[in-house]
Amino acid sequence: MKQSSSRSDTLLGGLSGAPDVDTELTDTSLLQAMLDAEAALARAAADCGVLPAPAAQAIVAHCRADRYDPTSLGRAADATGNPVVPLVRELTAAVPEHARPWVHLGATSQDILDTALVLVTRRATEPLLRHLDAAADAAARLADTHRATVLVARTLGQQAAPTTFGLKAAGWLVELLEVRAGLLRARATLPAQLGGAVGTLAALGSAGPAVSERYAEHLGLAASPLPWHTRRQPILDQAAAIGGLLAGTGKVAVDVGLLARTEVGEVAEGGPGRGGSSAMPHKRNPVDSVLVTAAARRGPGLVATLFTAALQEHERAAGDWHAEWEPLLDLLHLAGGAAARCARMLDGLQVRPERMRANLDATGGLVLAEAVAARLAPTLGRGAARDLVARAATRPGFRDALLTDPDIRAHLSRPEIDEALDPYGWLGSADRFVDRALAAHRGTLP
Amino acid sequence: MKQSSSRSDTLLGGLSGAPDVDTELTDTSLLQAMLDAEAALARAAADCGVLPAPAAQAIVAHCRADRYDPTSLGRAADATGNPVVPLVRELTAAVPEHARPWVHLGATSQDILDTALVLVTRRATEPLLRHLDAAADAAARLADTHRATVLVARTLGQQAAPTTFGLKAAGWLVELLEVRAGLLRARATLPAQLGGAVGTLAALGSAGPAVSERYAEHLGLAASPLPWHTRRQPILDQAAAIGGLLAGTGKVAVDVGLLARTEVGEVAEGGPGRGGSSAMPHKRNPVDSVLVTAAARRGPGLVATLFTAALQEHERAAGDWHAEWEPLLDLLHLAGGAAARCARMLDGLQVRPERMRANLDATGGLVLAEAVAARLAPTLGRGAARDLVARAATRPGFRDALLTDPDIRAHLSRPEIDEALDPYGWLGSADRFVDRALAAHRGTLP
Amino acid sequence: MKQSSSRSDTLLGGLSGAPDVDTELTDTSLLQAMLDAEAALARAAADCGVLPAPAAQAIVAHCRADRYDPTSLGRAADATGNPVVPLVRELTAAVPEHARPWVHLGATSQDILDTALVLVTRRATEPLLRHLDAAADAAARLADTHRATVLVARTLGQQAAPTTFGLKAAGWLVELLEVRAGLLRARATLPAQLGGAVGTLAALGSAGPAVSERYAEHLGLAASPLPWHTRRQPILDQAAAIGGLLAGTGKVAVDVGLLARTEVGEVAEGGPGRGGSSAMPHKRNPVDSVLVTAAARRGPGLVATLFTAALQEHERAAGDWHAEWEPLLDLLHLAGGAAARCARMLDGLQVRPERMRANLDATGGLVLAEAVAARLAPTLGRGAARDLVARAATRPGFRDALLTDPDIRAHLSRPEIDEALDPYGWLGSADRFVDRALAAHRGTLP
Amino acid sequence: MKQSSSRSDTLLGGLSGAPDVDTELTDTSLLQAMLDAEAALARAAADCGVLPAPAAQAIVAHCRADRYDPTSLGRAADATGNPVVPLVRELTAAVPEHARPWVHLGATSQDILDTALVLVTRRATEPLLRHLDAAADAAARLADTHRATVLVARTLGQQAAPTTFGLKAAGWLVELLEVRAGLLRARATLPAQLGGAVGTLAALGSAGPAVSERYAEHLGLAASPLPWHTRRQPILDQAAAIGGLLAGTGKVAVDVGLLARTEVGEVAEGGPGRGGSSAMPHKRNPVDSVLVTAAARRGPGLVATLFTAALQEHERAAGDWHAEWEPLLDLLHLAGGAAARCARMLDGLQVRPERMRANLDATGGLVLAEAVAARLAPTLGRGAARDLVARAATRPGFRDALLTDPDIRAHLSRPEIDEALDPYGWLGSADRFVDRALAAHRGTLP
Repeated sequence: MKQSSSRSDTLLGGLSGAPDVDTELTDTSLLQAMLDAEAALARAAADCGVLPAPAAQAIVAHCRADRYDPTSLGRAADATGNPVVPLVRELTAAVPEHARPWVHLGATSQDILDTALVLVTRRATEPLLRHLDAAADAAARLADTHRATVLVARTLGQQAAPTTFGLKAAGWLVELLEVRAGLLRARATLPAQLGGAVGTLAALGSAGPAVSERYAEHLGLAASPLPWHTRRQPILDQAAAIGGLLAGTGKVAVDVGLLARTEVGEVAEGGPGRGGSSAMPHKRNPVDSVLVTAAARRGPGLVATLFTAALQEHERAAGDWHAEWEPLLDLLHLAGGAAARCARMLDGLQVRPERMRANLDATGGLVLAEAVAARLAPTLGRGAARDLVARAATRPGFRDALLTDPDIRAHLSRPEIDEALDPYGWLGSADRFVDRALAAHRGTLP
Repeated sequence: MKQSSSRSDTLLGGLSGAPDVDTELTDTSLLQAMLDAEAALARAAADCGVLPAPAAQAIVAHCRADRYDPTSLGRAADATGNPVVPLVRELTAAVPEHARPWVHLGATSQDILDTALVLVTRRATEPLLRHLDAAADAAARLADTHRATVLVARTLGQQAAPTTFGLKAAGWLVELLEVRAGLLRARATLPAQLGGAVGTLAALGSAGPAVSERYAEHLGLAASPLPWHTRRQPILDQAAAIGGLLAGTGKVAVDVGLLARTEVGEVAEGGPGRGGSSAMPHKRNPVDSVLVTAAARRGPGLVATLFTAALQEHERAAGDWHAEWEPLLDLLHLAGGAAARCARMLDGLQVRPERMRANLDATGGLVLAEAVAARLAPTLGRGAARDLVARAATRPGFRDALLTDPDIRAHLSRPEIDEALDPYGWLGSADRFVDRALAAHRGTLP
Repeated sequence: MKQSSSRSDTLLGGLSGAPDVDTELTDTSLLQAMLDAEAALARAAADCGVLPAPAAQAIVAHCRADRYDPTSLGRAADATGNPVVPLVRELTAAVPEHARPWVHLGATSQDILDTALVLVTRRATEPLLRHLDAAADAAARLADTHRATVLVARTLGQQAAPTTFGLKAAGWLVELLEVRAGLLRARATLPAQLGGAVGTLAALGSAGPAVSERYAEHLGLAASPLPWHTRRQPILDQAAAIGGLLAGTGKVAVDVGLLARTEVGEVAEGGPGRGGSSAMPHKRNPVDSVLVTAAARRGPGLVATLFTAALQEHERAAGDWHAEWEPLLDLLHLAGGAAARCARMLDGLQVRPERMRANLDATGGLVLAEAVAARLAPTLGRGAARDLVARAATRPGFRDALLTDPDIRAHLSRPEIDEALDPYGWLGSADRFVDRALAAHRGTLP
Repeated sequence: MKQSSSRSDTLLGGLSGAPDVDTELTDTSLLQAMLDAEAALARAAADCGVLPAPAAQAIVAHCRADRYDPTSLGRAADATGNPVVPLVRELTAAVPEHARPWVHLGATSQDILDTALVLVTRRATEPLLRHLDAAADAAARLADTHRATVLVARTLGQQAAPTTFGLKAAGWLVELLEVRAGLLRARATLPAQLGGAVGTLAALGSAGPAVSERYAEHLGLAASPLPWHTRRQPILDQAAAIGGLLAGTGKVAVDVGLLARTEVGEVAEGGPGRGGSSAMPHKRNPVDSVLVTAAARRGPGLVATLFTAALQEHERAAGDWHAEWEPLLDLLHLAGGAAARCARMLDGLQVRPERMRANLDATGGLVLAEAVAARLAPTLGRGAARDLVARAATRPGFRDALLTDPDIRAHLSRPEIDEALDPYGWLGSADRFVDRALAAHRGTLP
């Protein structure tokens, strides 16, 4: 049996995913996770004396994905609505006769598939965290390097007042750290699923809870106080964490894309040979920003699907459970592409302090109007100060307008005006905030 | 180059899709659609004298998907953010030298990819319509056959009053016809895309509109008055139509699933060997109902994604466009599974009139309380009639309660009470409504 | 009873809605629509001889919203889950005794509430269409006036090649016309609802279909072939149309917002006294663009809710129906704000051709690289032409680089190079496309 | 100035909300929260010596919502896109002259509105938690009381095997506890917002961080390491928590609704005078279940809106921020209705053990097929056991079929068969799981 193909190897899937995450999401990986659940169940039951040790060993030995064909299992699944039924049939046929009665002992299809999806999620989270760490490291470097690189802050699309590129990167950093913390928190509670046909573990007699705990231990997963067949908060936690990742990396990508706009030109994505256009020889497109943004746009719909599907009735839902499978894998796929590209984008980011300064100066100091008003306020009052400055702001050449306005000059000397117009004098706590973000970064990483 | 694999051939994809639709959504099919667009462009440009006929012929001859490898194109796409750039490079390298300057003439990547997605949508719509027709035919048969099969209607989960299974099926039929009409309407307006780098067709000089029209003709697609690179209403029309299909088939599936509940047992899905459980030997699950419901739960999130992505800025969106590709294909995939399974489910549906009658009678006539009240109303007034009947309804044995209530008996004889309690006397326009639904069905199908 | 308050009169609601649409969505308006349904039912039943004419007249006379208190009806609704039950109780108490038995004859709560929501939708569509017409008129004026105003087209956020502001506005115009057509199409099929307790109209005996048709006529609504209590495609059509409106106006707003960015500065929103900031005296925010964008972001989630809620089971859904009411009104509210603000934004748009030209020239002609390559292609071949131009594009001063490159000069004279660098020579079909859009506009408006 | 009206006092809003939560969401409450932010800012700045104490006192004294009119503030907001600008203007006009320069010192509109929405969320969370506690208490009582009440578990809509109503209620309890924990976690991190015009707190000079910390303390909110104007993970945390509440209560409501279906009849909602129908005198609708389900259907779309809106660019988003306000309030509104009704529904739930037992027995023991097979497995092997039982299951009268099947009787005596068919013998760990849920409940509540 060959390895099933990864979405990264398709015409479009590589643009939305990342190879190291996608490899955890293949049919082979999912199948292996299902078999890991079966193996863990056999081991756990043997540990508790419910099942003969040799049977467990035999079962475990056949729990290897390369022995089964996902395509034929997928086809056979049509008759029962899930791929566990045919897999159990094939696994049972494969093991020696003495072990057959013990395959899938006490379990139901949902135990195996839920546990497998949880395992896949856990495994895919590893490369996700690596990419997030790389992205956070790159953001931290940018924050530290560019503490004193001034640029203009923009609110509602309009130039507003000075800030530093370091603070902008510090904001990205804190968001990436929050995303990382959310992912770790969701991972920590990923529970194994074992409830048997209807959540009572009846077929395990009195050994149910003990088997259940050993099962979770073998799998390295959290144990749930009771089966969660139709109590889907763990899936919602995961959905929210991945949705947060897509939103957080998306915010960074949107910022980079806007800073890279031709008229702004304050950053560019690095990387030779990337970003060409099929029609225009001169273009250099911010491809990673574009693709991370695209992934982010797709997150909320999938998050909503999982929240919608969470109203699972009775002891097994007639459709809502089945609706979860592919969307959860889709979210992990998108998260991989977003995290990997966000890291690459930040790591190779070309920063252009001179363009930042030029854009900051482009309005002739208008973006420091608030600073000038602040200097006038103590003597004039804030309202009068603001009105005076607003009047000057309507005249061409803001600095000249200030210098030639007698009402202003009555209170501010030329050097005082020039000081007010110096962006470095109006950065407030930017540097302190960068320090905090960097401290958070150091504290988070072990 | 082998045919790329279909989602129906994967571990989970066959449960959400249908083979005949999925085959239109493979990498090979998408690649062929992209090449069809390139071929149509070459032909159209040659038709208009913009490109030498031999060059067009040479290009067309190389527009065969089996000559290109989706995996390597997908990987190469990472540098530019879409797979058209590497495809054009490979196509250009493949054609004879004289034809090379004419490959992709005047086009931009989005022209090719949008047109390809439109073609794939159009092609996938064919099997979708076939499945919908089969489902509608089956619903029509059920409506006609069961005009006189009474069962209890349920409102807010409670038994309410009699209706016929024919009318229930007629409701399904009308919904399927509405879904079909929506799909046809969306298909009719699927437009070819051709705008060049920025939507002016500048590279085609004055021939732009003429080439554009011929291009649409060669592809059998509608022509758009102007390029729609960032005007995505055509995508929204498609999203709404497929979303409507998923909701409509989902409603039918929910009804079937509820009618098949053990305690109701009024229908069962047909098909030998289907619906088994991995844990419980006696169970027969309504698998198609479950899977159609699951598909329906996933529709709204994907529809929302396409509506979200429609705010495409300037002349090409930096992410929102890219966010459309996979969700549109996902919707088509889900629609295939839903339509095919809905047809199979209705076609094989086992109807149990005796269970319907038994359930209808289970409350001892309470579900005809409105009918009794209606008989009392002309003399007593509707309010008093209703109060009298409500009082009787609280006593055990509704018929006896009516027969022994002197205030009721003052107005209704025993035969009149029994007549009022006959469900066949309280079916109103059910039969007329069935006629209308069947007429709509005949009118819609040519 | 005073008029209930409009969302436009609240702290936040005026920012997302428009007064003339919101006035159709108040409690008073919804209550009146419910009463209009009751009145139409009485009239229709009287027309068909099912109900005495004097009773109908008495009922109609009391179907005036100002006689009922939405707050107390809303509170009473808690016991039954909808406000129709207490309204019918109050209406019955209000009419003279002879008319009491005939109030709400043959109807169920859903008949009245669905019909009322359809009426409210129809009534709210009127001002929506007016705003869309005004927006389309403004877009048409911009398209016509600025046919020859060149600006740079932007793809993936990067300057790409010349286009005209007229063509950009023509794209907006066509989108607004498509939105308008969608709204008209959805309005045309808005059906009255009348099915009685379970969709058979049993309480109307054989008069069901006749009463149903007269009912729709009195209300000016389409008649549905059968009741659509749990067949919600009409609601989905409406959701898609309004979702399309929000996306379409949102696209225009996003474009305006980006063109208004300080570094671009090609347009500004008009209107004195608008757009001030609480902190920065110099700022002028594009408020309408911001608020239309905000409304557009909220559309997809509400559209998804209505598609989710469409899986309505049996003869009345236990929750999904109730989930539709407020989201449908929310969508209409948002559509009002978006359409009205889009019209105001386009109507007052300040266009700055000189900034457009300056931005177009800012790259020194690089955005015409494709045009230069096109001139070289006939002799050099497209590949070689493209490579030569791309090489020149990497040197500072694109025009000089072209003029001093011997390989280029071997084929192009100085005047030819300057001609190639003239944006007016590389507008392709822009003007023809503007003509088409204006023709579509004239054709659409009666 | 009168108190602005609550959504619970409208025609439809009371059906989706709860009065005690809605009262925290009125215009008056939001306005008060905005003023609380202004007051806390004045106090904090005075604490840090940035502002004269008398000015702070004067400002604080005027921060009372009853002095301002939300309607006129809402209208004035149209010019600037948010209601803070006119509120600051009115507040400034209201305070004595000496305090005017100090109003809104160093803040931007978003500081005030974000903080106000956070305060409103925090305040609305109090009644939400009370309702959740009441719901959890009721679920715990049901779990404990009905430990030994057997009923049939249902999977994919089919009767499957025995369980206890106690375990079903224990599942509800654990979900409610998880929801509660999620809400507490989200509440704990609700951060105050203070960043000034562009997130640097420039206007506060070097006092920025100190003022910011005192500000959070005065408000009883968490302090954020840096302003989060465009870093919206805190909003996403809140959205996920409320979305989880709606899903969790929705799951309980769906279960109750299904158990209350006429054909099942195992529970009924309590409460006299509730659940009547406008057309059918005998009906008793599970109104709370219906309305909680309806609220749950609306959650995912709003959650998706907040995740969509989280891609906020630069230092203040041009639309995405504005898109958050109403959906966040809508989510809180829906959560109120869902939590309050869930508590009422569980508190008054009428449980019918005799119907549970009757339904369990309705298939003549088929639901214990797995138990019979388990008894045969040790001697026959699981496959053969399962096949034998499945064969018996196809014959009418399962017990008789077992008793008369020689292959089965070879291994099981009549008493053994009857033991196997006793549901109390096939409850597995149900009781232990109830214990765990109750322990979790005790542990969670202080």
